[in-house]
Amino acid sequence: MAEKISFEAPRGMRDFYPEDMVWRNKVFDAFRAAGEAAGFEPYDSCVVESYELLARKAGEEVGEQIYHFFDKSDRHIALRAEMTPTLARMVAQRQKELQFPLKWTTIAQCFRYERMTKGRKREHYQWNVDIIGEDSILAEVEVIGAACDALRRMGLSSGDFKVHVSSRRFLGELLSGSGISADKHAQVFLALDKRGKMPDEEISAMLRDGGLSDADVKATFDIMNLKSYDGCGELRELFRLAEIAGFSDCLEFDISVIRGLSYYTGIVFECFDTVGEFRAIFGGGRYDNLLTTIGGEPTSAVGLGFGDVVVTELLKSRLGEGAAKAKRGVAVGFMFPEQRDAALALASRLRGEGEAVMLSLKAQKPKKFFSRAESSAAAKAVFLGPDDVEKGVARMKDMETRGEIEICLSAAK
Amino acid sequence: MAEKISFEAPRGMRDFYPEDMVWRNKVFDAFRAAGEAAGFEPYDSCVVESYELLARKAGEEVGEQIYHFFDKSDRHIALRAEMTPTLARMVAQRQKELQFPLKWTTIAQCFRYERMTKGRKREHYQWNVDIIGEDSILAEVEVIGAACDALRRMGLSSGDFKVHVSSRRFLGELLSGSGISADKHAQVFLALDKRGKMPDEEISAMLRDGGLSDADVKATFDIMNLKSYDGCGELRELFRLAEIAGFSDCLEFDISVIRGLSYYTGIVFECFDTVGEFRAIFGGGRYDNLLTTIGGEPTSAVGLGFGDVVVTELLKSRLGEGAAKAKRGVAVGFMFPEQRDAALALASRLRGEGEAVMLSLKAQKPKKFFSRAESSAAAKAVFLGPDDVEKGVARMKDMETRGEIEICLSAAK
Repeated sequence: MAEKISFEAPRGMRDFYPEDMVWRNKVFDAFRAAGEAAGFEPYDSCVVESYELLARKAGEEVGEQIYHFFDKSDRHIALRAEMTPTLARMVAQRQKELQFPLKWTTIAQCFRYERMTKGRKREHYQWNVDIIGEDSILAEVEVIGAACDALRRMGLSSGDFKVHVSSRRFLGELLSGSGISADKHAQVFLALDKRGKMPDEEISAMLRDGGLSDADVKATFDIMNLKSYDGCGELRELFRLAEIAGFSDCLEFDISVIRGLSYYTGIVFECFDTVGEFRAIFGGGRYDNLLTTIGGEPTSAVGLGFGDVVVTELLKSRLGEGAAKAKRGVAVGFMFPEQRDAALALASRLRGEGEAVMLSLKAQKPKKFFSRAESSAAAKAVFLGPDDVEKGVARMKDMETRGEIEICLSAAK
Repeated sequence: MAEKISFEAPRGMRDFYPEDMVWRNKVFDAFRAAGEAAGFEPYDSCVVESYELLARKAGEEVGEQIYHFFDKSDRHIALRAEMTPTLARMVAQRQKELQFPLKWTTIAQCFRYERMTKGRKREHYQWNVDIIGEDSILAEVEVIGAACDALRRMGLSSGDFKVHVSSRRFLGELLSGSGISADKHAQVFLALDKRGKMPDEEISAMLRDGGLSDADVKATFDIMNLKSYDGCGELRELFRLAEIAGFSDCLEFDISVIRGLSYYTGIVFECFDTVGEFRAIFGGGRYDNLLTTIGGEPTSAVGLGFGDVVVTELLKSRLGEGAAKAKRGVAVGFMFPEQRDAALALASRLRGEGEAVMLSLKAQKPKKFFSRAESSAAAKAVFLGPDDVEKGVARMKDMETRGEIEICLSAAK
């Protein structure tokens, strides 16, 4: 036997055993179905990108966290930390040919080298939903609506989650209205984005460092207490259209949603569980610099990123660990080698009829067969003994109801 | 505008635009459906693996081709070149808990740094189908049967492809029967594996270098002309069971299928298009050293690797470029901003009924709307003008038959 080496995945990377895949498929299937229902077209690209592209878009913090290396031709390449730079590159590459607006979606594995803390991995999958080249607020409605639809398809309702919505433009107007000049807004956004993550005193200090007077700081905190979006036309329109589209119960106005630095330019949103137990489920907004940062033509876009980790934790908590284990398919077994041909013929016939069939590969005692069928995903089970094959009739057992129906084996030839 | 950077994917890596994803989804959907029908459970792992694991399993050539690098903690990591080492690691990690036999499947992106030649990429996706811990020939039948089923689900038939099957054990027996001792068999397999890739004279030279006499070389070439598998019990059984399972028309005996070096131990197979136009579509066989090379307990396994590149080329060639573009879903548009709410309400209703809806995000002239609907994937189209909304009735057009049906808008509220 060879020297034993570690059987663990590299630190921060996940293995998906079949029982983990049941959850992942539940989440991914909902992403795909919601994207398709809302008319988004799938796209994808390789997880390996040029380092230059990723560094251009990334802030300094992210730049530090990129996995990067040189290939054998000394090309500087990297594992993407997010999909947006790749999206920008692909759109820019065909900007003259593509028919805008684009409605594109992908489920992209992304890598980030981070200190390991609980729940933090160094890779995750992120569902991306983007509309590129459309100014209308209907773009925001379609993107947020698709995300709410995905959560519903996973089995959650508006009682489980809320999409917190605000507008960068609105917040800027409110700041200007309080006499805080536009050149200071970026610094204010940066400070306000830290709310909840650091004490208000430190945020006040950040604001004063940004050139705000004590009165400005007070005005800024007052704005953060705003509970109504009535002063903002685009938010009023967003909520009205969400009602027509049937997901306004999933939305709430939240002036404190900022989303990082200079990236976003209009509506911004973040989705949280209503208990406040988990980190953000998804987030996004309108951004106008997608293509210009890499040298493409200016275009407006709305997009969101929806990771697989938080939502899976939420689903397990709200629906229970057993929720993903839907029983389906038929287990087929046989008692002696003499029944193997009949079992294979039956399995092939059932597969031809559209059933998923778990065929035992060798003769078994009935007890062992039914015990494994019980613990598997099988909804039904058929076990062939000598008498069944001789008579040409077997019994198919419903694993839940314990009821049995007779099936004809002769049709198997 | 920022300095322009390259919009191309890194060399050897693929972008998948929506029109490429149509083909990829056709192939992946067939992989998933065939795996599920045959009762294989999905698993997955991260594309980043430890270098030590990959180097252990890989031959020298592959070791040279691995993308590897050091992370910020100086961990030696790499992008997997194939899934088998990861599969071995995951099985070994839980060897005491897992219920054997395992029937596992995954679609794994794999990387290999190669000189760029036509059709050769540095990454591809490989469908892996494995049965681990089962000696019965029924394991081979299930694995090969699933692959044939996937090809049929893609729209191909046994006239388009054949699975060439042989047995390492049978070939060894034939060589021994000709007086070529077992210690020389590895060298003979190595030489015979090059047939078709180099002239027979060079293969003869390789065989003589391996210690074979001129008579042995002649005997070896005679064996390569064998057309019947009657002397091999396990091949007879495989063909008989494939007939019961309904895919024997996809199989043919081919003594020249060898598959590399010491990896395989029994049945081996490779699938080719019947015209002989493309490289192998998939290949695999029985292998016994899966776990022992990394220090796990011995176990027998049957598996195959089925790449996405060759089969996609084959499908485009045999089915035509248009074959993947199935029309589906409904395009919804509107003439003036006043009809936008009605269009959104209709789109939401149709989505609730299970339709994929491509909703126009702004008012359009009917000509422009129908022209884009025509070039899109939409099977049906509805365009709302002022009269339609006033009457509460619109017309849904079938894009293929040009027929129209009336639909009620009032039900949209």
